[in-house]
Amino acid sequence: MPLEKKNRPSRRDPGDEGDALLLEGRNAVLEHLRAGGATDKLFVAEGAEGRLGDVLALAKRQGVPVAVCDRRKLDGLSRTGNHQGVIAQAAAHAYATLDALLEAARSRGEPPLLVVCDGIEDPHNLGAIIRSAETAGAHGVVIPKRRAAGLTAVTARASAGALEHIGVHKATNLASAIDELKAKGVWVYGAEADGDVSLYDADFAAPTALVIGSEGAGLSRLIRGKCDFIVSIPLRGKVNSLNASNAAAVLLFEAVRRRTRP
Amino acid sequence: MPLEKKNRPSRRDPGDEGDALLLEGRNAVLEHLRAGGATDKLFVAEGAEGRLGDVLALAKRQGVPVAVCDRRKLDGLSRTGNHQGVIAQAAAHAYATLDALLEAARSRGEPPLLVVCDGIEDPHNLGAIIRSAETAGAHGVVIPKRRAAGLTAVTARASAGALEHIGVHKATNLASAIDELKAKGVWVYGAEADGDVSLYDADFAAPTALVIGSEGAGLSRLIRGKCDFIVSIPLRGKVNSLNASNAAAVLLFEAVRRRTRP
Repeated sequence: MPLEKKNRPSRRDPGDEGDALLLEGRNAVLEHLRAGGATDKLFVAEGAEGRLGDVLALAKRQGVPVAVCDRRKLDGLSRTGNHQGVIAQAAAHAYATLDALLEAARSRGEPPLLVVCDGIEDPHNLGAIIRSAETAGAHGVVIPKRRAAGLTAVTARASAGALEHIGVHKATNLASAIDELKAKGVWVYGAEADGDVSLYDADFAAPTALVIGSEGAGLSRLIRGKCDFIVSIPLRGKVNSLNASNAAAVLLFEAVRRRTRP
Repeated sequence: MPLEKKNRPSRRDPGDEGDALLLEGRNAVLEHLRAGGATDKLFVAEGAEGRLGDVLALAKRQGVPVAVCDRRKLDGLSRTGNHQGVIAQAAAHAYATLDALLEAARSRGEPPLLVVCDGIEDPHNLGAIIRSAETAGAHGVVIPKRRAAGLTAVTARASAGALEHIGVHKATNLASAIDELKAKGVWVYGAEADGDVSLYDADFAAPTALVIGSEGAGLSRLIRGKCDFIVSIPLRGKVNSLNASNAAAVLLFEAVRRRTRP
């Protein structure tokens, strides 16, 4: 294609937090939150909560997860050496609402095609999924707020610019987000090896959300139970699963093939 | 699926060399080479060549690339602190001949379906490609000897066990390997964005090799010139390429769909 024209981070990149955009100290964090900047997480040193009442109140109102931890954890994260007991991990890109993703489909006159990530932990995988979703012409990606990769700098780079062109919604509660999609007429397909429908028999012409499980454990039980269908990619080898981003790509492009080449 | 049942390495894993299986010192390296153990690279300290004539002769006979470098480079790689001027980087799995890949197809009564990696540098990507090739039921993967990831421990883990079930051929000269495939009746499809044939119009029923370009630069000019066709995945977004392993997965599973669902 060139298959990857944009710069690709080396795997020696620092991981999620190490590579994150960090704001340190009470004033910087407060300013960021007041400006409505996208924030993935707040780290607060034990004992510093008392002095940070306004920061914590604002974080709570915006639904930002707060981790109260040993001061040494913050010392380790800090780049300025002057974190004053609070560090905010900013997102590399603003998040979108669920409605904005559906609106993207509406404005293009297409039935929605979304990817829901049920706990993808590796920012390289999340970035590759966002990239595949954008190149396939899908309308958005949904990720959970907790226990999953967010829009860090690593994710942004692995997306090769796709983050600028497709919305990512961060759901406080992934199960509720799926309920909301279903209520709005979207069919939800969970991807698992033991599916009740083959990829080739699924009806992707209707509004569709493809749910991709985590790298380690696949779909969580709660999310699996929420899916309308469990869809499988027919595999012909001895290994019983694909890498999460590869599975998402195969599902996405098959859905698009069926929509565009009846 | 669970999409990844096997353990997945953390991205904080040491990289290629750091994670490699290293043999240190003249005797260990000599023994490994004499036993015909798969070897990705030999590091020799400047000035130590004289004492290592037998090692170097054997490495040359087996086509193992030799890097003569500063002794401090070896000091950095060494885990025993006693490398005696020579370290061999063993492969995590033995390589297969090109004929063995074609024989795998013959024995299954199928036209060959191969993936050729033109300079994939990231062992996570290479592992994911090997995993997708195996799960798709392809017959083998071809990689070049130089300037590309080999079968390191990281590659093996990212393949999630697929390395045990599909052959990987390491070509001394990738262009010659492609010539050999063509001489044996295999059609060679290079994957690029500006292809002359769409993924959906290519004839994958015939013996097929899919050539995937490197993460940074796509297909090299020499290899592109060797391809019978340049095939494209129709993209509908603004980003103009997929991640290398995602592109390989989409191509592989479309080829398999067309072969199995006429």
